Amino acid sequence: MLFESLLADRTRLMSANAIREILKVVARPGMISLAGGIPSPDSFPMDIIRELGDRILRKYGSSAFQYDRTEGFMPLCEALSVWLQKKGIHADSDAIRITTGSQGALLQLGMILLSKGDAVAVEAPTYLGALTAFNPFEPRYLRVDTDEDGMVPESLDRLLERERVKFIYLIPNFQNPTGRTLSGERRRTLAEIIVRRGALLVEDDPYGDLRYRGQSLPTVKSLAPDHVVYCGSLSKIFAPGLRIGYVVAPEPVRRWMVLAKQGIDLHTSTCTQALAAEYISGGFLEKHLPEIMRIYRPKQEAMLHALDRYMPKTCRWNKPDGGMFIWVEGPAGLDTEKLYRKAVERGVAFVPGKFFFTEPGEGNETMRLNYTMSDTQTLDKAVRLLAGVLSE
Amino acid sequence: MLFESLLADRTRLMSANAIREILKVVARPGMISLAGGIPSPDSFPMDIIRELGDRILRKYGSSAFQYDRTEGFMPLCEALSVWLQKKGIHADSDAIRITTGSQGALLQLGMILLSKGDAVAVEAPTYLGALTAFNPFEPRYLRVDTDEDGMVPESLDRLLERERVKFIYLIPNFQNPTGRTLSGERRRTLAEIIVRRGALLVEDDPYGDLRYRGQSLPTVKSLAPDHVVYCGSLSKIFAPGLRIGYVVAPEPVRRWMVLAKQGIDLHTSTCTQALAAEYISGGFLEKHLPEIMRIYRPKQEAMLHALDRYMPKTCRWNKPDGGMFIWVEGPAGLDTEKLYRKAVERGVAFVPGKFFFTEPGEGNETMRLNYTMSDTQTLDKAVRLLAGVLSE
Repeated sequence: MLFESLLADRTRLMSANAIREILKVVARPGMISLAGGIPSPDSFPMDIIRELGDRILRKYGSSAFQYDRTEGFMPLCEALSVWLQKKGIHADSDAIRITTGSQGALLQLGMILLSKGDAVAVEAPTYLGALTAFNPFEPRYLRVDTDEDGMVPESLDRLLERERVKFIYLIPNFQNPTGRTLSGERRRTLAEIIVRRGALLVEDDPYGDLRYRGQSLPTVKSLAPDHVVYCGSLSKIFAPGLRIGYVVAPEPVRRWMVLAKQGIDLHTSTCTQALAAEYISGGFLEKHLPEIMRIYRPKQEAMLHALDRYMPKTCRWNKPDGGMFIWVEGPAGLDTEKLYRKAVERGVAFVPGKFFFTEPGEGNETMRLNYTMSDTQTLDKAVRLLAGVLSE
Repeated sequence: MLFESLLADRTRLMSANAIREILKVVARPGMISLAGGIPSPDSFPMDIIRELGDRILRKYGSSAFQYDRTEGFMPLCEALSVWLQKKGIHADSDAIRITTGSQGALLQLGMILLSKGDAVAVEAPTYLGALTAFNPFEPRYLRVDTDEDGMVPESLDRLLERERVKFIYLIPNFQNPTGRTLSGERRRTLAEIIVRRGALLVEDDPYGDLRYRGQSLPTVKSLAPDHVVYCGSLSKIFAPGLRIGYVVAPEPVRRWMVLAKQGIDLHTSTCTQALAAEYISGGFLEKHLPEIMRIYRPKQEAMLHALDRYMPKTCRWNKPDGGMFIWVEGPAGLDTEKLYRKAVERGVAFVPGKFFFTEPGEGNETMRLNYTMSDTQTLDKAVRLLAGVLSE
């Protein structure tokens, strides 16, 4: 094919994201999707957005539409500086970097830190979109064991003993894909390990604010501030179409990130940053968060109830205190990719868990179920259909 | 320094963009800047933006704030498909890719095409921001001669004879930094050369619509559609803070670009794309363009008039039919970087031309002057001050 010979070496590694391929099936008419990882549009504060649109035109005028700092729109950095104090993260507005989605943050980290063959330590299973950001830089992935309480610190410590790792990638709260949350004790142990080993940890926290029950746990960033790059996102607590992520990183990481971002997109959209600045500084985020919980909690309860009611005894699943996912483990020998094909014929889609593991052969019996995009009745029906296929 | 050892090899090449450093000086109180390359905020259609904000909320509702296709928001692709026909570019909406600024397009092209040491052919001088996008992938730059009529085709042909080049990077209209426009005859010759040589050309065209005088020339894309990646931008004809660029590329380039963009930012902001879609499809772009010309033309005339009046006879400059820049060449031996330091002391900033050349030692006697950000009286004063420093 014309120009095929022009391909860079790295491009051969950029296969289409398997989950994105699965999500194409979801678009079929009548399909019930438990496959996505996208927030319900009902959770978007549309009335607030309308008000904020007027407000940014009045307050910032044409400067909300002009080129802006690569580091980020200053009123947004200031608003986040205040907001982050609740998470025990003390960062001046000058130390905050705005990114084009948290995907943009992961890309920048890959770009500045990873040479070909460098090692990144990841949870098993982990978020596939992070690997998509790192893959162009051709790293190796080293798996760290996880269980119901998240990453197993001893497994990480053993890995850091024997391998030079550029960074550890971790989702501590309501992890994608498992919905698991790293326990408080493990956070302290992990913080101790990365400080002792001189390691850098990327704490990706898009779901931390989506807590329906129980107490928030301290961020790893708050426990080891000099060793953690904290990545946040407004996609699940405002709206993903704005593409606003942010980062609090130690020097010199945040300085290199700015150099990388100059080449990536100069800066993130000024007007979406202005909307976000007003959403947070005007107190709208704080007021709207309980509304999002009010939407998601009954959906999660409906899915858990249906799992209890319909699923065969051979299956196990967790009951996360928040987030967007439930992780189901079938009996040994189950192949959820085959199950997926049958389920799609019956009109239900999900993501087979194997796609979230970096090592082939792991997670064949697992699946990720999302509940944010359907109503409670539909969720009941979907789980019933899925259980029917499983029982055959 | 902590973590300095974690740096990827490529990061050492990501020095701060010299022009961005120069632009920091511009922020000093009282400084007149001829240094920037940013559009006048007076050129932003603020009343139209207000109307479009209401319109996208009515028309698209929450879907303007949801995750969207990596390829681009379909109504924007459809609007661009129609708009591009005027440029002789016939592309279905399916063949158009939206990028986060045209910077995002250049990054994607670098990512999918450039392995370390690969060659990119560039004009001498060329746009520094493009190099910032390509640098992380560690290419070599090969210079192609240019003169008043833009890239010299014979120089390119000789280069392609002796070197394997991944792509040629070209700004055909009102080039940054020179303001020069590639002649119609050269466009046809270049098209013939790239087809004959089987080469790929990146036609970056952010300024093509900013024409104050004379007839538009055919895009190289229209003359060699299978060999050209056409990059457009709404930054100069709508507002740069929206970060909207677009690309019309041959298969398989546009397919690889989507894979790259999944890792870069998933997709460009849905709501800024929705604004852009309505701006173009609603006929606002077509109506607003003459208004932008009405703002810029007198500014350019004021600068040209002041150059005629004040500049020493040893200097030469061009009179572009549009765009944002005038290119001044001083006498041999002039060092415009030294001149820059003196000019800044007098309160005028510009960009020394040497920063736009990939080969050290070229362009020492040149400078880029921008006129979009000042009023006509200020432009007169700035050129007078600059001429005063030059005459010393």
